[in-house]
Amino acid sequence: MSDSKPMTYAQSGVDIEAGDQMVSMIRRHMKRTYGPRVIEKHGGFAGFFRLDYNEKLFKRNYKDPVLVACTDGVGTKVKLAAQAGIYDTVGIDLVAMSVNDLVVTGAEPLFFLDYLGVNHLNPQQATDMVKGVADGCHQAGCALLGGETAEMPDVYAPNDFDMAGFAVGVVERKRMLDGTRVEKGDVILGLASSGLHSNGYSLVRAIIDNKGLNLSHCYPELESDETLGQIVLTPTRIYTKPIISVLRKYRVKQVVSSMAHITGGGIIGNLNRALTSDLDAKVARKNWPVPPIFQFLQGQGNVEPEEMDRVFNMGIGFCLIVRPTFAKSVKKRLEKAGQTVYKMGSIVKGKGRVKLT
Amino acid sequence: MSDSKPMTYAQSGVDIEAGDQMVSMIRRHMKRTYGPRVIEKHGGFAGFFRLDYNEKLFKRNYKDPVLVACTDGVGTKVKLAAQAGIYDTVGIDLVAMSVNDLVVTGAEPLFFLDYLGVNHLNPQQATDMVKGVADGCHQAGCALLGGETAEMPDVYAPNDFDMAGFAVGVVERKRMLDGTRVEKGDVILGLASSGLHSNGYSLVRAIIDNKGLNLSHCYPELESDETLGQIVLTPTRIYTKPIISVLRKYRVKQVVSSMAHITGGGIIGNLNRALTSDLDAKVARKNWPVPPIFQFLQGQGNVEPEEMDRVFNMGIGFCLIVRPTFAKSVKKRLEKAGQTVYKMGSIVKGKGRVKLT
Repeated sequence: MSDSKPMTYAQSGVDIEAGDQMVSMIRRHMKRTYGPRVIEKHGGFAGFFRLDYNEKLFKRNYKDPVLVACTDGVGTKVKLAAQAGIYDTVGIDLVAMSVNDLVVTGAEPLFFLDYLGVNHLNPQQATDMVKGVADGCHQAGCALLGGETAEMPDVYAPNDFDMAGFAVGVVERKRMLDGTRVEKGDVILGLASSGLHSNGYSLVRAIIDNKGLNLSHCYPELESDETLGQIVLTPTRIYTKPIISVLRKYRVKQVVSSMAHITGGGIIGNLNRALTSDLDAKVARKNWPVPPIFQFLQGQGNVEPEEMDRVFNMGIGFCLIVRPTFAKSVKKRLEKAGQTVYKMGSIVKGKGRVKLT
Repeated sequence: MSDSKPMTYAQSGVDIEAGDQMVSMIRRHMKRTYGPRVIEKHGGFAGFFRLDYNEKLFKRNYKDPVLVACTDGVGTKVKLAAQAGIYDTVGIDLVAMSVNDLVVTGAEPLFFLDYLGVNHLNPQQATDMVKGVADGCHQAGCALLGGETAEMPDVYAPNDFDMAGFAVGVVERKRMLDGTRVEKGDVILGLASSGLHSNGYSLVRAIIDNKGLNLSHCYPELESDETLGQIVLTPTRIYTKPIISVLRKYRVKQVVSSMAHITGGGIIGNLNRALTSDLDAKVARKNWPVPPIFQFLQGQGNVEPEEMDRVFNMGIGFCLIVRPTFAKSVKKRLEKAGQTVYKMGSIVKGKGRVKLT
């Protein structure tokens, strides 16, 4: 750049017009998620969500409401998405990571916001990403209230990006769940994951690179018509609607003692967060099938079984700890809501640990 | 890596123990921001914030409360922070970007969450970053309710990082501000910025690189004892407390018609968002001093004046449009709250544009 040539913002790598174009393209995806509580306002500095203090429906549900907030990303799953050129599913993962954490507390999700950091703003790609986020919000039953896309050519390499999500929900104070209600004899139900979900992708990618695996290839060990790329990019399952349906059904009896979203750390590193320090969760691997993708990665990477358990969900995406007399009825209700449910084990006296056999 | 050597998560670049260490280090920074509405819970899947339905104080303030949510990053200011090795101030910028947007709507901030993406988790650096976020929350008067740190060695280059922030506030529905109240004759007050704030950093960095400027050097044109690095990393001013104090003071009279947070796009591209389409904002540059850093960058980069106006705040970080009879009184109140306030211009008939002379 010569001294005499004036410098502009566009020269430094940022395209304001492409940003404006995208904003209008994503607006229709956001609107798909709007319920009657969302207020649309001129100017667009922020998103608005009514709390309905004065409406009977809300008042009946909440006497002492507590707002619950979570944030998460999708880890290096974004790298695989960029590699495979599939941009419209990681948004579902992004919503899943936060809202599944939210529902663990007993909260129903109200709204969601996303942050997207990119190298260069490609309006079509960014719109695909936000479409995924809107799909996730729709599945979770919350409004996509806002978002930000940041073009940072010096932070993100070409085609690279990162995403962060932020969810807010509400729970009646007395019904907040945190493990203190768990009792010896409670039954642990596991909801099947859709696959890897959004954790362990640094290891997944290391195995793929190390063994020269082909994302476009169908490997017979995966027992599927899908390619390896499609299988590793399967969106994280969103559990909010079936869980909330269970919590609402047994409103008085409080049959759910505690819950856990199985993320990084696996069953061992997450189910323990649903316990108190005087109880153990005793679960047996034989009680649910480990999907082929986990065995495939373990074999290809020669990964120790203990390491697999510490990194991956191994087929279980979400756990509920329920009163034994209601276990069957809760299981049936979750199955009716489309979930695959396994009786993984039960609660015994212990030290706040997960004993996986 | 040989075929026979088992692969582990740590080998693939992620250090779970360093993460655990940091979590305990940042907890004390988070606690600094907690008020009585924050509920601490075992397990840590989410953050909790009471809405105080049953408390008189909250009920008196909010009859029909609307939740307001914003998200933003700090742009490539993170690159300069990494370059200068100063990690404990960009967190203030992060909070500022979201809460200043929030207060534009008339909302008081309630809580904040942050997302931090890094190459490698350095507990001290990450703690410094979260310290900055907690400082910002303290300045803004909101709780740092949660956060996520993601270690992504394949997305972020060594020492690189990105940050995203999420703020939630509350506003009484009837008192939401959106520009529709602005009238011909209203006065435009400008609050001095602390400097560049968090926009235009791709251009700032291009100028610094292009001219070989030294971040550790004190340039006489900057009329300051601070180095160029310190000046360009000055944290964004947080305007929430003085603004809320004004909004509370004139609760019945509603003397504030509209507001604007001056970010990317400058005064021209943000003050227009505070107007309706039949009015113009007429502002004169002579009404406030442009700080030396802007003139310095303009000169070094040979940047056109129009481009400067489109990219930078030029010394004004936040605008209030107020009823003319109250302009003096509002100005005094803001000054008492420590702000430097300029009468920038006034509202005239027009087409929803900012006319800067």
